[in-house]
Amino acid sequence: MNRKITDPFLPPERLLLGPGPSPVAPEVLAAMAHPTIGHLDPAFIGLMDELKAMLQTMFNTKNEATFTVAGPGSVGMDACILNMIEPGDKILIARNGVFGMRMSEVASRGGATVVPLDFEWGTPVDPAAVDAALAKDKDIKFLAFVHAETSTGVLSDAQALGAVAKKHNVFSIMDCVTSVGGVPVEMDAWSIDVLYTGTQKCLSCPPGLSPVSFNQRAIDHIKARKTKVLSWFLDVTQVMAYWGGEGARAYHHTAPINALYGLHEALRRVLVEGLDAAFARHRKAHQYLVAGLQKRGMEMLVAESYRLPQLNAVKIPAGADDAKVRRSLLLDHGIEIGAGLGPLAGKVWRIGLMGEGARVESVDRLLAALDKVLVKEPA
Amino acid sequence: MNRKITDPFLPPERLLLGPGPSPVAPEVLAAMAHPTIGHLDPAFIGLMDELKAMLQTMFNTKNEATFTVAGPGSVGMDACILNMIEPGDKILIARNGVFGMRMSEVASRGGATVVPLDFEWGTPVDPAAVDAALAKDKDIKFLAFVHAETSTGVLSDAQALGAVAKKHNVFSIMDCVTSVGGVPVEMDAWSIDVLYTGTQKCLSCPPGLSPVSFNQRAIDHIKARKTKVLSWFLDVTQVMAYWGGEGARAYHHTAPINALYGLHEALRRVLVEGLDAAFARHRKAHQYLVAGLQKRGMEMLVAESYRLPQLNAVKIPAGADDAKVRRSLLLDHGIEIGAGLGPLAGKVWRIGLMGEGARVESVDRLLAALDKVLVKEPA
Repeated sequence: MNRKITDPFLPPERLLLGPGPSPVAPEVLAAMAHPTIGHLDPAFIGLMDELKAMLQTMFNTKNEATFTVAGPGSVGMDACILNMIEPGDKILIARNGVFGMRMSEVASRGGATVVPLDFEWGTPVDPAAVDAALAKDKDIKFLAFVHAETSTGVLSDAQALGAVAKKHNVFSIMDCVTSVGGVPVEMDAWSIDVLYTGTQKCLSCPPGLSPVSFNQRAIDHIKARKTKVLSWFLDVTQVMAYWGGEGARAYHHTAPINALYGLHEALRRVLVEGLDAAFARHRKAHQYLVAGLQKRGMEMLVAESYRLPQLNAVKIPAGADDAKVRRSLLLDHGIEIGAGLGPLAGKVWRIGLMGEGARVESVDRLLAALDKVLVKEPA
Repeated sequence: MNRKITDPFLPPERLLLGPGPSPVAPEVLAAMAHPTIGHLDPAFIGLMDELKAMLQTMFNTKNEATFTVAGPGSVGMDACILNMIEPGDKILIARNGVFGMRMSEVASRGGATVVPLDFEWGTPVDPAAVDAALAKDKDIKFLAFVHAETSTGVLSDAQALGAVAKKHNVFSIMDCVTSVGGVPVEMDAWSIDVLYTGTQKCLSCPPGLSPVSFNQRAIDHIKARKTKVLSWFLDVTQVMAYWGGEGARAYHHTAPINALYGLHEALRRVLVEGLDAAFARHRKAHQYLVAGLQKRGMEMLVAESYRLPQLNAVKIPAGADDAKVRRSLLLDHGIEIGAGLGPLAGKVWRIGLMGEGARVESVDRLLAALDKVLVKEPA
């Protein structure tokens, strides 16, 4: 490694089958390499309008307040929670993995009183338990939950959770970072008030952007706040002024122009394929992977009825060295898979079949590599 | 305009001579189009280490805590201020333009007591006035100021301001979004404790990233906080764990991989040219522009002694229609310049000669276009 600091960086070739980022199509990479234009250029404003329309289609919503926060999914989480809560507000957070835990951390830093509702990692959020918790404490104003838990590979029933929140007249805030583009997300039909997602999962766009949507009820709530949003950058009413929610565009921050070119192309590709076709492709690759793993005697962590197609947590076979296997897959075979997190560290691998990665060919390549790597491991 | 939602977006060609983004070199655009790899890939960790070293060179600092926040410059401002202040802390904010005002807004949302110190827009921050303000109120813990005010084109004396802060034993927080790469920034020599910058100005990288640096004194201060940082995403101690400040890398957020490829290439290009050569190029283009404008009877807003080479505020000639001229430059000639902000709206144009834009050829193209557009305007 005699690299000088001024040597160009050339990334190695990887097949990204971890929890994200997912493989990015050459067309999306090429779109990001288009020349930069100004963030107030009429041509760029046109791009923003098209992005909004495409995101509305992705989320199945008519919400005007549908736009992109200029940071990765974690910033979307910050944005959604910190705009909705005010210090002292009570928020029920359903937690069945890393990202539910993170929501708690975000909300409590924002001054909210967090009412946690915990579920075993590897199982979904139970709408009946949420219903009971909301019935018990009438001061709760918000329900936050993760639609598709990337840390475990579990899909929760967002439709049922949205209905429970509506029944108790609390705002629902949904993390759909890993669900959008891989499984249906029906924001309006499910009565979800606020959601955020990421670009680096089933949309197959590089990380760095967080599309969000707020319905009118949520926007009215934010406009009626007694305190200002803690972060100037994340204040939705100001960001919306730039995204053209009401009247003239006002300069807020400098939008990440080229990243948004990439997102435009990535969304375009999903819509040209069609959402239903994309969902079917994710399911097909998933079923093919599960069959292949099971044929090799390996076992899935999550029960079939709430298993995510795009994120597959598989139990590490007895005798296999977790880190060594992942390292060999990466360095000898150019394939990235993910480690387990929290209580699942060392117990599962997380295999992502997201966006462009959700193909039978990817699974074949992974299974072939896994066969070679596991044979080399002591039994 | 019969665009379908699924038509690809092709940006028009623009010469970016506004307040940012600046023109991006084809090599930087190409770097961003390299295939995405994982944010925990050893190859990517290597990239992060190189970025850190290059940023240290840019800032002239040895600070370990030198890294990139995954959002535009406004997020860097949020990150630096919200990590340093705790509710009730007093912060002196020197304000001589839009970005000093924004710092106040960020600090007061974070619960700080802002002591504003205002200077006329178009003039620099006066170190003697800062000295007097700090002498008067011993409860003040922080001094925040903007090195290069993008809204006016004024350079303040950061060396003197750093010395004043040190004398009074307060932390200095410097916005150097527009200065880095265009004029010298000597973080360690000037005793600056915390700084943030952006990528879309004199580094000629697309917007979306904010390099920051904290010295050890600032990090110790953050570690001794009594309250948690309000934003989970921006908590420097956690971000540092990912950037490898101390011990093993911990997953925090998904880094914007391809944007960081671009920043690596942009920094590499500046360092290959050499900082002194880059500064000289900015000065030369600036002097050439000023001469050209003055020859046409136009007048600069800012006095020569503290005029920024990279951001030139020129008074709009009598009789010229501000918006119409800018629109014609953009749409008829493909050249973007900036409008005035706040009290300077309608009074000045802001001409950026930043990074790749700081070339005599760019100035020639602008002056030629300006001649055509102004002739068409009613006198």
